[in-house]
Amino acid sequence: MTLFAITGHVARTDGSFSINDLPGSGGRMDVLCRCVNASLFLSHDLRRDADCCLVLCGEPAGPKTVRFSGAKVRSLSPDERSAGALIKKVIDTPCGSVFREAAPGVFIRKGGLAELLAEHRFAVLDENGTDIRKAELLPDAYLLSDHQNFTEAEESLISGCPRYSVGPRCLHADHPITVLHNEL
Amino acid sequence: MTLFAITGHVARTDGSFSINDLPGSGGRMDVLCRCVNASLFLSHDLRRDADCCLVLCGEPAGPKTVRFSGAKVRSLSPDERSAGALIKKVIDTPCGSVFREAAPGVFIRKGGLAELLAEHRFAVLDENGTDIRKAELLPDAYLLSDHQNFTEAEESLISGCPRYSVGPRCLHADHPITVLHNEL
Repeated sequence: MTLFAITGHVARTDGSFSINDLPGSGGRMDVLCRCVNASLFLSHDLRRDADCCLVLCGEPAGPKTVRFSGAKVRSLSPDERSAGALIKKVIDTPCGSVFREAAPGVFIRKGGLAELLAEHRFAVLDENGTDIRKAELLPDAYLLSDHQNFTEAEESLISGCPRYSVGPRCLHADHPITVLHNEL
Repeated sequence: MTLFAITGHVARTDGSFSINDLPGSGGRMDVLCRCVNASLFLSHDLRRDADCCLVLCGEPAGPKTVRFSGAKVRSLSPDERSAGALIKKVIDTPCGSVFREAAPGVFIRKGGLAELLAEHRFAVLDENGTDIRKAELLPDAYLLSDHQNFTEAEESLISGCPRYSVGPRCLHADHPITVLHNEL
């Protein structure tokens, strides 16, 4: 199973955002929705061996983590609004520190990057990392940031993680996921 | 300059679609909007050396071709709605068989695949093609289909084009564009 995790630094953590305005009211939720698409979609099918975790760090209740299971998710279409509607549907579900299934194949819990890092050995995707094509062994879990760089606090959390790059140019978060799936 | 062209077999050819329902009322316009994103976007920048042509073949006035110029386009954000809003804005502009700039960097004309093929030497991206990594010389223009396969009439138009693949699995149209940019 391949896991992609993306930090959404200002992504809204309650259901007050509009799926007609994912970039603004959602706190760049559009970026995260495209990452769900890139992580899970084949043409007319889903990657059943991939999961995607969105670490939502914005107002008013962050951090929360939403996990999409490629094996279990239902009612997900490739357009941004579809993933956005599922996030909006689950985000206000009462939850604690353990993932709770709030819609088929969509799980939510309180907690963010620190909790994920304690559970998986992540590689960080970063344009300054080692070329992924030169890596001897590829890990199963990849961490990316949204339109903002990792914060200082996040950087100290991930300082021990290996860093890989898919190329020299700074890409949108969903594009390296697509490239990486292709390499895998 | 790299050109990507995508055929939208049922993509609406007037402005009557809703940007809140790009998949339904737009005739899977969401697929085409993601292709614009994959063709033109870097993080916080645009690929100024890339263009994206959308061949809209749906009702009521198809085919029409919308061309996004990476060098000239303005007011384009990476979310689907942003590209969708620009398409909706230009699609009813009166035009003939020559591209007319209907918004900054967004051009429209009547005509579809046959006209494009007469102007550019396209390679077709297709999961049954030659592995792109084994190609000796990569062309400057790539043609993809949307969520549907090429029709028989289209297949006969493109029968002379070389075919390349980015991998053995059938992907959404925007994903091979991302992979191909990465290889280039």
